[in-house]
Amino acid sequence: MANHHLLSLSLSILMVFHGCLAYQPFQQQQQNECQIQRINPLEPNERVEAEGGWTEFFDANDQQFRCAGVEVIRHHIRPQGLYLPSYINTPLMIYIKQGKGYQGIILPGCSETFQSSQQLQEQSQQSFQDRHQKIRNFRQGDVIVIPAGAAHWMYNDGQEDIIAIVLLDSTNQANQLDQFHRRFFLAGNPKQAQQQQQQGMSWGRPSQKGWSQEEGSANIFRGFELEILSQAFNVDPQTAQKLQSPGDNRGHIIRVERGLQVIKPPVPFQQQERGNANGFDETVCSTKLTANIDNPSHVDIYNPQAGRCTHLNSQKLPVLQMVQLSAERGVLHSNAIVSPYWVMNAHSILVVTNGNMRMQIVNNKGESVFNEQIREGQLVVVPQNFAVVKQAGQEGCRWIAFRTNDNAMINTLAGQNSAIRAMPVDVIASAYQMPREQALNLKFNRKETVMFKPSSMQWGMSAAA
Amino acid sequence: MANHHLLSLSLSILMVFHGCLAYQPFQQQQQNECQIQRINPLEPNERVEAEGGWTEFFDANDQQFRCAGVEVIRHHIRPQGLYLPSYINTPLMIYIKQGKGYQGIILPGCSETFQSSQQLQEQSQQSFQDRHQKIRNFRQGDVIVIPAGAAHWMYNDGQEDIIAIVLLDSTNQANQLDQFHRRFFLAGNPKQAQQQQQQGMSWGRPSQKGWSQEEGSANIFRGFELEILSQAFNVDPQTAQKLQSPGDNRGHIIRVERGLQVIKPPVPFQQQERGNANGFDETVCSTKLTANIDNPSHVDIYNPQAGRCTHLNSQKLPVLQMVQLSAERGVLHSNAIVSPYWVMNAHSILVVTNGNMRMQIVNNKGESVFNEQIREGQLVVVPQNFAVVKQAGQEGCRWIAFRTNDNAMINTLAGQNSAIRAMPVDVIASAYQMPREQALNLKFNRKETVMFKPSSMQWGMSAAA
Amino acid sequence: MANHHLLSLSLSILMVFHGCLAYQPFQQQQQNECQIQRINPLEPNERVEAEGGWTEFFDANDQQFRCAGVEVIRHHIRPQGLYLPSYINTPLMIYIKQGKGYQGIILPGCSETFQSSQQLQEQSQQSFQDRHQKIRNFRQGDVIVIPAGAAHWMYNDGQEDIIAIVLLDSTNQANQLDQFHRRFFLAGNPKQAQQQQQQGMSWGRPSQKGWSQEEGSANIFRGFELEILSQAFNVDPQTAQKLQSPGDNRGHIIRVERGLQVIKPPVPFQQQERGNANGFDETVCSTKLTANIDNPSHVDIYNPQAGRCTHLNSQKLPVLQMVQLSAERGVLHSNAIVSPYWVMNAHSILVVTNGNMRMQIVNNKGESVFNEQIREGQLVVVPQNFAVVKQAGQEGCRWIAFRTNDNAMINTLAGQNSAIRAMPVDVIASAYQMPREQALNLKFNRKETVMFKPSSMQWGMSAAA
Repeated sequence: MANHHLLSLSLSILMVFHGCLAYQPFQQQQQNECQIQRINPLEPNERVEAEGGWTEFFDANDQQFRCAGVEVIRHHIRPQGLYLPSYINTPLMIYIKQGKGYQGIILPGCSETFQSSQQLQEQSQQSFQDRHQKIRNFRQGDVIVIPAGAAHWMYNDGQEDIIAIVLLDSTNQANQLDQFHRRFFLAGNPKQAQQQQQQGMSWGRPSQKGWSQEEGSANIFRGFELEILSQAFNVDPQTAQKLQSPGDNRGHIIRVERGLQVIKPPVPFQQQERGNANGFDETVCSTKLTANIDNPSHVDIYNPQAGRCTHLNSQKLPVLQMVQLSAERGVLHSNAIVSPYWVMNAHSILVVTNGNMRMQIVNNKGESVFNEQIREGQLVVVPQNFAVVKQAGQEGCRWIAFRTNDNAMINTLAGQNSAIRAMPVDVIASAYQMPREQALNLKFNRKETVMFKPSSMQWGMSAAA
Repeated sequence: MANHHLLSLSLSILMVFHGCLAYQPFQQQQQNECQIQRINPLEPNERVEAEGGWTEFFDANDQQFRCAGVEVIRHHIRPQGLYLPSYINTPLMIYIKQGKGYQGIILPGCSETFQSSQQLQEQSQQSFQDRHQKIRNFRQGDVIVIPAGAAHWMYNDGQEDIIAIVLLDSTNQANQLDQFHRRFFLAGNPKQAQQQQQQGMSWGRPSQKGWSQEEGSANIFRGFELEILSQAFNVDPQTAQKLQSPGDNRGHIIRVERGLQVIKPPVPFQQQERGNANGFDETVCSTKLTANIDNPSHVDIYNPQAGRCTHLNSQKLPVLQMVQLSAERGVLHSNAIVSPYWVMNAHSILVVTNGNMRMQIVNNKGESVFNEQIREGQLVVVPQNFAVVKQAGQEGCRWIAFRTNDNAMINTLAGQNSAIRAMPVDVIASAYQMPREQALNLKFNRKETVMFKPSSMQWGMSAAA
Repeated sequence: MANHHLLSLSLSILMVFHGCLAYQPFQQQQQNECQIQRINPLEPNERVEAEGGWTEFFDANDQQFRCAGVEVIRHHIRPQGLYLPSYINTPLMIYIKQGKGYQGIILPGCSETFQSSQQLQEQSQQSFQDRHQKIRNFRQGDVIVIPAGAAHWMYNDGQEDIIAIVLLDSTNQANQLDQFHRRFFLAGNPKQAQQQQQQGMSWGRPSQKGWSQEEGSANIFRGFELEILSQAFNVDPQTAQKLQSPGDNRGHIIRVERGLQVIKPPVPFQQQERGNANGFDETVCSTKLTANIDNPSHVDIYNPQAGRCTHLNSQKLPVLQMVQLSAERGVLHSNAIVSPYWVMNAHSILVVTNGNMRMQIVNNKGESVFNEQIREGQLVVVPQNFAVVKQAGQEGCRWIAFRTNDNAMINTLAGQNSAIRAMPVDVIASAYQMPREQALNLKFNRKETVMFKPSSMQWGMSAAA
């Protein structure tokens, strides 16, 4: 399988200069940072405003994130908002909670395959000829993968705010730089940068603050001398100076007043990820980086009474093998239960997107380290191997969970295909000191898989009351 | 090769929900923990009793183990003893020093392929119909691999105690949790848990103690509320409560009075690892997890006068590529010598199982950091690249060595195929300032490979006297 | 691609005893060691003399090296100088800046394929029959890869000094031992070892010194008792004692007075890496470990006015996938510019071999952390993702850059195939607040790729004046 994906990625190069995507950044351990005494539901604790939207930061120093070795941020991009081009030293996994738009993910050595022709020009009233790399549409429910170091920008061409939940896998093997993410902007001049610099935090991450220097950056052109920029781009110094964005106080998300004009197919295209290029091009340049996890037709677990669950792993989206991440989208109906389970090989970073549910998380000493309700917008990290149970509240619950393995393996404890079902009745009877009849009940009473409709009262709501 | 194994594993999924085994947990470095001044032979320093046996712990904080990034424990399971089901955040490699039995290694998404039929029921006088996952026999000399997070149980159906030496690879890439192993029990209620909790060590590993919290755990069901367990399993609260094993003081190994009744083929089956399932099933669910390393017919190095040596690497047992471990079984006759050698790419964790031998271990400064006898039951870690020589005592010596690479590469210094043989005579003559004739002797006098019968007196015994 | 290389390596074993090279040591992160405030050009700060040459050490504790997780040393081997056989716990990448010679890289289990026949003996006047492993010629411009733990020796059979720049990848996954490299000598008795031992630094790396214990080692035979050596090699004690090199004060590079006599093809052979062996042999034993990066016919980027650039990655030399390293050879003409760029997935360790150039290195806050000239013999580390620009001085500049990824991916900012070219004109116009016409200039004015001839004055020289 792993092979097959590698083959299908078959990451080649167009120009030898640009090298190859064929690294396999296996998840690195954050050892001894998982001595968690108590898990609390997290919410963002910092907010950075910009002209075209804002970004919220969860506390990257919280032990839950240090245990999982990740960071989480949330972007709000208003209509006609453009998130300025930047690249980061970690792979990103983005879930589009709301909205639609398009983005450029710039891969080195890939052709400028979106070109304006004479005809198109006339149709689109564009007064110039342009060509650029592929642009990818996205919409609610999409999961987008951005490799470490790949420059990207994002634009809202819809009518409502884009809400994007972003996982930054800072301990990913692809990040050789630092324990926290660093964003390198190619444009703009975020206000906060000045403030941080005034505070003397002229380099890297301020350790006393709970959020990354996301916005504490001038763009990288600021560090070059005008003369060399002018020569490199073969433009006059005035043009070169604009690269450094002096006096730009719009922040990291700008508003494009007249709307952004780019070359892209006139009708929305969804599964057009594998492009029209030559043999080499197809491998790395047309790697599929997006998949929709909300689409009900891709559901993996489905119980009409209880809910549904979709997994996005490297079997479905091969690029996930490169970044060693996966995602789960869960929908749980009113009062329905997810069987107690543990994930064998990954941490889970779970964000509730709608409604609420009650979760219990249990450590290896049989202690409950979390036994609370978690509601829309809140986040919880479930460490590898910790046992979990979930029950939705009255209005049901939806969540997105990021996992630090491209093929997270889940063991349920109750129901069809569970670990209890896998054991002989006599092992159960002996282990739990019960008659075989009782052991048989334990094994076979629950016929469903993973998601159950509770027979009686609502545990989640009553207990929380 | 690596490819081929991946292909032959071809780790797929039955239910998408359960994900996939296709991770490749490469050995992680424990850097700067190998500044070892002196190596001492280690013996277990803690012992935890249970009804059906006991477990001994080597000091996980010893610098030898910190250098190698592993832990070692030793189980003694009495006849009719059942090691309760549990899972651990590290891969395990188990050597069965003595005894026989069978075990369940529970893999998510695998079918319950062991089923009682009507006929079988009548034959076996079982009054109920059961079905469960595959059960694997084991016997003396078996090496068993258990992936991180996979629940497993073990039963002694023989006449003598099972003695199982267990390597826990805590720095394995598959462990994202902690620097030390954590065992999550699915059943039971080990006494020690209470004691530790009374001491306020309510979470994780007590750092002041030299052993893991192996037995400091209540089972994971204890952390869930009865009501949710009752609902999840669809059983009455009394049954659900038994999952939490209240009042059970039998410890982690219980005695099954009447003997365990499970469904398994009436005659012992040995090489029946690749099962009868469908195409998907065969990949992950019938992965071979066991091989016998004592079987003389699989010997790799054999010298009738000196001894024999068997290597179990991922060439022979492909699952070892996933856990990045291998093993060596050595048998050395009275006074015989193993050529000086170094392992290029792995630490070695060596346990003497019979007899004794003398070892010298040399660091990069040419200093002997170990020059002692090591006898049955003792353990020594040989760090990567350190040079070693061994000579058996009068009664000979047998050992099992675990290595932290799935294909440990060994360079001998003397004899056929040695590094000295690989060098031109003139390099040797120049480097050691000796005539070519002497250099030729150095290269060609020892004709054997790896294991030598000494010509004269016994170094090991005399020097130790 | 990754697959294909694995397949073509297909690292097998001749003798099962010797295991297999099929490990994939992925680069490990050195996290939080890249909070670099200021980068300075580095030069060696220690020098160890020997009879046949000397070795210079760059300060391994410098934050630039700690960020990149590597060390760099430079050997000078005089004509007829023999670098004594040794092995190291890290993979090595060696660039031959000057000179020629040959070397043995000893791989376990590989046949002694270089044999003297009767005829050859008569021709070469050798009075003895010898056979040994393959010997590899090298010459100026060669890049040589030595796996971790592989013993090797090197001999100068030319007329001028060999100058070899050596990268030691101490955080490579293949090194399980220590954060710094340790060299295990098989012969010799370097003077410095005694000094260090007198200072009480009897083990490992002296932390207060900025260089490795490269020469602080007696050879490993010193740690074994004479008696066991005598038995193992089946030689008399006098011969065995010479293995320990008592009284040898020639250091780590010795002079072979009469010149070294070895068996090798009479005419220089260059691309004869894939040998004459059987099927198994061919895989691991004839793996290509060397490639010439100076050969103009292998150039990847070429601009007659500006310069040329050659990349050596795992596409070209598959063994690089195993060690996760690559190299770049750059030649820049007088005043020519390398487009501003960043490397997505690797640190770069750049050594100027001829001439000088000016470099600017910019961090994620848009700050210039390096803005200086770097001249022949100096070294600079460019951390992953940091933006860089280079301009050669009057006499031009040549460099070798080692990279900590086997397929380093480079994104340029200006010129053909750059990130700016990949973006739609309207994104540029909006981001930099410029009219579309100016944005078009920015995108399309510079037609060349990577290396540019400056149109006007020399920035590098003038600014530095």
